[in-house]
Amino acid sequence: MNEFEHYLANIENATGASGLFQKDLLLTWESSPEELKTIFNIADALKYLHSNNISAKVFESGLAVSLFRDNSTRTRFSYASAANLLGLNVQDLDEGKSQIAHGETVRETANMISFLSEAIGIRDDMYLGAGDAFMREVAKSLDNGKAEGVLNQRPALVNLQSDIDHPTQTMADFLHLTHHFGSIENLQGKKIAMTWAYSPSYGKPLSVPQGVIALMARFGMNISLAYPEGYELIPEIVETTDSFAAESGGSFSMGNSMDKAFENADIVYPKSWAPYKVMEQRTGLLQQQDTKGLDDLEKSCLAQNANYVDWECSEAKMKLTKKGEALYMHCLPADISSVSCEQGEVAASVFEKYRADTYVQAGFKPFIIAAMILANRFENPQATLKHLIRRGTERIHS
Amino acid sequence: MNEFEHYLANIENATGASGLFQKDLLLTWESSPEELKTIFNIADALKYLHSNNISAKVFESGLAVSLFRDNSTRTRFSYASAANLLGLNVQDLDEGKSQIAHGETVRETANMISFLSEAIGIRDDMYLGAGDAFMREVAKSLDNGKAEGVLNQRPALVNLQSDIDHPTQTMADFLHLTHHFGSIENLQGKKIAMTWAYSPSYGKPLSVPQGVIALMARFGMNISLAYPEGYELIPEIVETTDSFAAESGGSFSMGNSMDKAFENADIVYPKSWAPYKVMEQRTGLLQQQDTKGLDDLEKSCLAQNANYVDWECSEAKMKLTKKGEALYMHCLPADISSVSCEQGEVAASVFEKYRADTYVQAGFKPFIIAAMILANRFENPQATLKHLIRRGTERIHS
Amino acid sequence: MNEFEHYLANIENATGASGLFQKDLLLTWESSPEELKTIFNIADALKYLHSNNISAKVFESGLAVSLFRDNSTRTRFSYASAANLLGLNVQDLDEGKSQIAHGETVRETANMISFLSEAIGIRDDMYLGAGDAFMREVAKSLDNGKAEGVLNQRPALVNLQSDIDHPTQTMADFLHLTHHFGSIENLQGKKIAMTWAYSPSYGKPLSVPQGVIALMARFGMNISLAYPEGYELIPEIVETTDSFAAESGGSFSMGNSMDKAFENADIVYPKSWAPYKVMEQRTGLLQQQDTKGLDDLEKSCLAQNANYVDWECSEAKMKLTKKGEALYMHCLPADISSVSCEQGEVAASVFEKYRADTYVQAGFKPFIIAAMILANRFENPQATLKHLIRRGTERIHS
Repeated sequence: MNEFEHYLANIENATGASGLFQKDLLLTWESSPEELKTIFNIADALKYLHSNNISAKVFESGLAVSLFRDNSTRTRFSYASAANLLGLNVQDLDEGKSQIAHGETVRETANMISFLSEAIGIRDDMYLGAGDAFMREVAKSLDNGKAEGVLNQRPALVNLQSDIDHPTQTMADFLHLTHHFGSIENLQGKKIAMTWAYSPSYGKPLSVPQGVIALMARFGMNISLAYPEGYELIPEIVETTDSFAAESGGSFSMGNSMDKAFENADIVYPKSWAPYKVMEQRTGLLQQQDTKGLDDLEKSCLAQNANYVDWECSEAKMKLTKKGEALYMHCLPADISSVSCEQGEVAASVFEKYRADTYVQAGFKPFIIAAMILANRFENPQATLKHLIRRGTERIHS
Repeated sequence: MNEFEHYLANIENATGASGLFQKDLLLTWESSPEELKTIFNIADALKYLHSNNISAKVFESGLAVSLFRDNSTRTRFSYASAANLLGLNVQDLDEGKSQIAHGETVRETANMISFLSEAIGIRDDMYLGAGDAFMREVAKSLDNGKAEGVLNQRPALVNLQSDIDHPTQTMADFLHLTHHFGSIENLQGKKIAMTWAYSPSYGKPLSVPQGVIALMARFGMNISLAYPEGYELIPEIVETTDSFAAESGGSFSMGNSMDKAFENADIVYPKSWAPYKVMEQRTGLLQQQDTKGLDDLEKSCLAQNANYVDWECSEAKMKLTKKGEALYMHCLPADISSVSCEQGEVAASVFEKYRADTYVQAGFKPFIIAAMILANRFENPQATLKHLIRRGTERIHS
Repeated sequence: MNEFEHYLANIENATGASGLFQKDLLLTWESSPEELKTIFNIADALKYLHSNNISAKVFESGLAVSLFRDNSTRTRFSYASAANLLGLNVQDLDEGKSQIAHGETVRETANMISFLSEAIGIRDDMYLGAGDAFMREVAKSLDNGKAEGVLNQRPALVNLQSDIDHPTQTMADFLHLTHHFGSIENLQGKKIAMTWAYSPSYGKPLSVPQGVIALMARFGMNISLAYPEGYELIPEIVETTDSFAAESGGSFSMGNSMDKAFENADIVYPKSWAPYKVMEQRTGLLQQQDTKGLDDLEKSCLAQNANYVDWECSEAKMKLTKKGEALYMHCLPADISSVSCEQGEVAASVFEKYRADTYVQAGFKPFIIAAMILANRFENPQATLKHLIRRGTERIHS
């Protein structure tokens, strides 16, 4: 059985696909481990096709709408790549150039952009309490549009980062780990340190640390979350992580020491974020357009951050990890000390050692997104993938 | 004979295609009813193919240029969808990022963007007297480019809304009516009330009301145009509508009472617009960049509008229509009272009752645009459509 | 042997392809004449396929990234057309909407946008000493990404205008000449006057005049470079041109008289540019964001320019050329006296006479870009082209 057949077999065994068809994966903790495994195996199968010059075009035509309410390079290109791989054309919804300001409802816009669309990807991570809610409103509008006969098909909705989760990022992270350690099973019992790290900026979203702990807890990993006092994540997600860890035979611990988290870790993921209480305050101020309040909040937060400049992923800290050789991870771009800032999340020498690894990590994202679209739009993804390999159309004609 | 064969037969009977090949449909009143019917039937055939998962890709490659000189959501996505359905890739001409400011002529730009382009869609609706003129200059430049050997092919020019007509909108509106009432023939003798409605904004283009009356008059409908005194449309178009109605066995009447227009109507289309004399003034002020003058004009117009807040499509007004059940239409987004504004064009309860209908109405636009491109670029659209159904390529591979 | 077979035979004879595979053509003077001839013949072959309605799609999927650090119409559409012709989808990297400001390195960005990309086109012409250097950093990053296993394929990098060369422009110019005069061989001994011309603007890049003289010198042409004293090009490129002319059996002369350059010329290319010393100053001021300094520099340069308003390509000057019938060339948009400005580079009557020629000239650019991508990504372009004509897929289905 070759690599590709192995992925196909995993999809069949997982039997998770039926729960994915025409369902949006907005938060990983709403899907079962089997469903998540199905996505991973579809992503691997698509990556295999790409590497082996076999076309994965399953759509002859169709739009993939993108809506970015925040800046993006990696995710924008990942989404565009995924859409293109499957045969869709990206059409960006630029709210500044649209008539949306005109007082149009979300329900209306969602239908208007979907007549010939097969997927919609949204990034909306700025306002705590808003991004996920917005995506659910879009999802419901699409369901209604299909039910009311307005839409001929129900596009897949892809969460390209909300205020609380960043599933395309964390699932790419996880897929990277399965390749690095050999399999999903091998991750059982591995220790991952998800820690806060110092950054000279503030207001970074909570979606990555929250998404990472909640996802890794599904597959038996030992998770050490660490941050300076006051940098709490949303309590509900921490609780969810705790029970997921128990269910999967892993463990979950929290503390305020970066060193302790790094001790004997197999994987470290040091990354800055803002406390969720600050994010709540910030959301309020942004909504009130209180510039003065925002400036004051930024100043006090940066002053607060400055107490923790030693939360840097340094060579000394890496020595604490298993054999001093833990895998370093980052969602990029990292704040690299003396490269992108004076003092930041990671020492230049540490980052450079793992630089190519972080790039490889990022390279899984297009395939995770493509897998999400495929699983949402095709009832039997295994059969679809079999069809692609049998068809055997060259991606690049030779 | 199935639905699709029926559309093909209609195209043959209409024999309107020859007048469409390599001709731009910039204003519906320049085309014959047979030509318009051909577009409708091609649009229906393309919609049939889409619904039945049959690819309508007639181009293997080629660009569809878009140039939006005003905001757009629906039309932008409709154009992108239409282009994509036929196999073309949208390339947006963003005049701000181009060298056009550099003093380049329209003739030059038109050629420079067309070397490998198959269609050009333009929205230019802000200046009365300018949009249609600009499109004609582009059209002439393309004709010359083809004649001079500069261009290998002559792209189809699509009017995505000009200062005087909005054919992709009104033809989608009409196609919606043919489906709602069963056929084009069934529209003979139906009464449509095209009326002004109150809006708290000003300066809305004349292209929709003008386009609607001029198009509906071609097919034997009884048109009641109503607006408060002073909100006149361009006189020439009103005259054209009048003679079209006479020719087609319909009727045309004008008045200043919304109630009277609604009385016994089968269809109502209440929508705000600015008087054409105001649009002329506004164009002058915009061209002179007279900010003060524009502010004053806006104020006086809004004050004027405020006299007519009772021009709202309310439940009471809907009761006046045939059996109280006329079809409500709008090009969207509508100014919905207490939803998108305090007081607007339509009561929330009326809009909600017909909301799905208005979405279905909007859903015909991508197919109308695709039909326009196909009719312009393919000499025998019937044969092309036959080829598509025989080829039977799945749009989404199963 | 038909036209297409003739191009294929030329590619074989040139045996230049092996030096092009997975190499970026950033500056024409780094490629051999055989390699350049291969590009010309591939471009001609692709143009033949397009004219004869044969699809040139060699990619089933893949992105073509574009990064424009300066405005562009022609080159943007040419790149989009080229990508589309080969089957790629353009994805624009808008640095304003990305996280690049975030302190991300060029190396990182280059990898992040390339996971499923087959080509990257860059315009970076504003800063002398910066554009070409940036492209080389991108190229090196892509090489590393491939070597490190980050990238599955190494995208072709296309120079869409740097600070020192504009190869897609000058090679399109040259291809136009081969068609106008019948063949590359026929250009041997032809005189081309590359001259400065007056423009009421300043700061136009040096890439076109430098690129033109350096390229034309490879094929035995007699090059007369003329400009008012003080409007020097970069000395190294002038020296390179001089030795190229000697090697190819052509000649190169410089002077300060437009009339002398035009005398008996077969081709004239009058175009404004800024002296390289001014470009150096300007780059320094731009980097220091010295607005006052930039304003002063602009004023002094325009004053300086104003001494040379007689450097206009007038009817009188054209009479000096061979039989008064030299071919006029321009990269467009030209500053046309009394059309796009009061007094400019070319008299309206001269431009009008050659207008269609300049458009035809511009029309070669999409095919040159497509040829560059094809030669970079396909080891045996001759075989690839043979495959396309044998496959014979219609570009537009009939």
